Amino acid sequence: MATLCRPAIAVPEHVITREETLELARTLHADHPQLDLALRLIGNTGVQTRHLVQPIEDTLKHPGFTTRNARYEAEAKARVPDVVQRALDMAEVTVRDIDMIVYVSCTGFMMPSMTAWLINTMGFRNETRQLPIAQLGCAAGGAAINRAHDFCMAYPRANVLIVACEFCSLLYQPTDLGVGNLLSNGLFGDGMAAAVVRGQGGNGVHLERNGSHLVPDTEAWISYGVRDTGFHFILDKRVPGTMSMLAPAMREMAKPHDWDVSALDFYIVHAGGPRILDDLCHYLGLTPEMFRYSRATLTERGNIASAVIFDALDRLFEDGGAGHEARGVIAGFGPGITAEIALGTWVGTREAAPVRV
Amino acid sequence: MATLCRPAIAVPEHVITREETLELARTLHADHPQLDLALRLIGNTGVQTRHLVQPIEDTLKHPGFTTRNARYEAEAKARVPDVVQRALDMAEVTVRDIDMIVYVSCTGFMMPSMTAWLINTMGFRNETRQLPIAQLGCAAGGAAINRAHDFCMAYPRANVLIVACEFCSLLYQPTDLGVGNLLSNGLFGDGMAAAVVRGQGGNGVHLERNGSHLVPDTEAWISYGVRDTGFHFILDKRVPGTMSMLAPAMREMAKPHDWDVSALDFYIVHAGGPRILDDLCHYLGLTPEMFRYSRATLTERGNIASAVIFDALDRLFEDGGAGHEARGVIAGFGPGITAEIALGTWVGTREAAPVRV
Repeated sequence: MATLCRPAIAVPEHVITREETLELARTLHADHPQLDLALRLIGNTGVQTRHLVQPIEDTLKHPGFTTRNARYEAEAKARVPDVVQRALDMAEVTVRDIDMIVYVSCTGFMMPSMTAWLINTMGFRNETRQLPIAQLGCAAGGAAINRAHDFCMAYPRANVLIVACEFCSLLYQPTDLGVGNLLSNGLFGDGMAAAVVRGQGGNGVHLERNGSHLVPDTEAWISYGVRDTGFHFILDKRVPGTMSMLAPAMREMAKPHDWDVSALDFYIVHAGGPRILDDLCHYLGLTPEMFRYSRATLTERGNIASAVIFDALDRLFEDGGAGHEARGVIAGFGPGITAEIALGTWVGTREAAPVRV
Repeated sequence: MATLCRPAIAVPEHVITREETLELARTLHADHPQLDLALRLIGNTGVQTRHLVQPIEDTLKHPGFTTRNARYEAEAKARVPDVVQRALDMAEVTVRDIDMIVYVSCTGFMMPSMTAWLINTMGFRNETRQLPIAQLGCAAGGAAINRAHDFCMAYPRANVLIVACEFCSLLYQPTDLGVGNLLSNGLFGDGMAAAVVRGQGGNGVHLERNGSHLVPDTEAWISYGVRDTGFHFILDKRVPGTMSMLAPAMREMAKPHDWDVSALDFYIVHAGGPRILDDLCHYLGLTPEMFRYSRATLTERGNIASAVIFDALDRLFEDGGAGHEARGVIAGFGPGITAEIALGTWVGTREAAPVRV
């Protein structure tokens, strides 16, 4: 009876608007032969605001991978404990109740990972299992929920803390000038999320079944170039069409659970871009309203990678929840192309939620 | 009833001997003020041979992180499928029987990770769960066994493939000249391992309990500097003394299982260096003979990071196994400082094993 409790969300204080992003693209890439296409693609994302860990002037500099990664570490250490503490409070557990920490992040690399630092700094038990995942990109939020679910199936009294920390702006590469790069520069944002999966008790999404799906031979569609200058995000133009392959995978995964994936009560999916949400409406035969939480995340935060699904889920909580025993799906999509899908039922009454921080 | 089956092991074809390593250190660091200390430390490791993915002349060059990481990817793709296939054969399962792939490696970074490539290339099911772990270093082999064990507890009919791929020689940093670096340059080797954890059936180690332990406030003792030039291994001189803290952790972890960790039948532990094995003898009150498999791995391969425990376990299999219902421990140690510990019982009769490949 593993229950995904209400996530805590945090975004950094520096904001860039849609208009500022477009103006920046016009200024930086005035001579780019595909500038108009890039501007149109950025405009089509629907992203209105994004949050950044640094002012935009600093974001646009590339001080080298050494400095970039050190900045990642400093920002993560400064910002993550608060969001973790709020997630623990929301789930009504303490650091001593946590049996595993799943820390997902694809925008910085540390060894030891943040899991060790969090245990030492916040007073988690020294026996806490550490599961840092850096290589699942935007799908890692879904993977974190699913591995937490599995862990609670193995140990029904366990509690798992999930942390998703994504500073996508620290991957800005000024020399990457493909249209896909220009689009990404206008799409991704920074954000952090934490949530507890309680093996017993708790209100939120009772996790019932999970699954993964890799779309064959699409490894090159979303990938990192790993270089002297750090991680370079490489986006293939075929990616926006991925839902034609992942919607059927979601349908197949729900079948053995005797659920019709087109007839659920709530949908919390990765808002990688607007086309993902539009296509899911189409392939699953749903109205855009069903993806309003994911859409709101995209609009207000941009694509904050593995943290998207938690931000969208928080909006469902904020909205009062889904109603007792309402059925839903949570799905992360990312490189591979990989989908990490969870089916769950809302536990708890539909009621006024605490004020959003 | 998850059972860790016999691992498959592979080492690359280029070999460097103890004498060649010492001669190299004398040549490269003739003016180093602590050369004598470094030579003594290297000599004390007991490492006689190590295997490298490239000839030593190429290993000593640093062509930049871009090229280094591309080499990691090329070597992994060329070498891993064979060791995976042998592990599957040894466990008498096929690619279609595998439900999760845990891929651990701290010596190269790919996104998507090797799990996606293996699924596409070797014909694993598209529903196979992917669990790539890059940030647990030498402890990741133990973590892989433990997360596979947990997964089989959650899904008792599941099978998990573990892959450990470590090309430590691709992390050689010619400008790192601390004594710890010189020692590391003479200690680490390259190696690959794969093993299947079967939820039902199989011969090998029946996994009964697992645990993790983080030694407080030792994050800086083993770490990576993440820089423009790639990963820089940083080793604190206090690391060899770690067993004074981890031996008690192993003892505590065995207590709720009603096992005395000083009275087991087999010990498969990470041979990070000779002091680890010497100290475990001391703190657990055991004879050196009890660590003969780990010692042989250290002597013949060097420290091959997360692959060490699989190489040592393979030697136990090669030796005919531990005898039916013999009790043992498998422990990986790595950055954090973290120990990942598994308790298990030998399943199957003590008998002649297949010839080591």
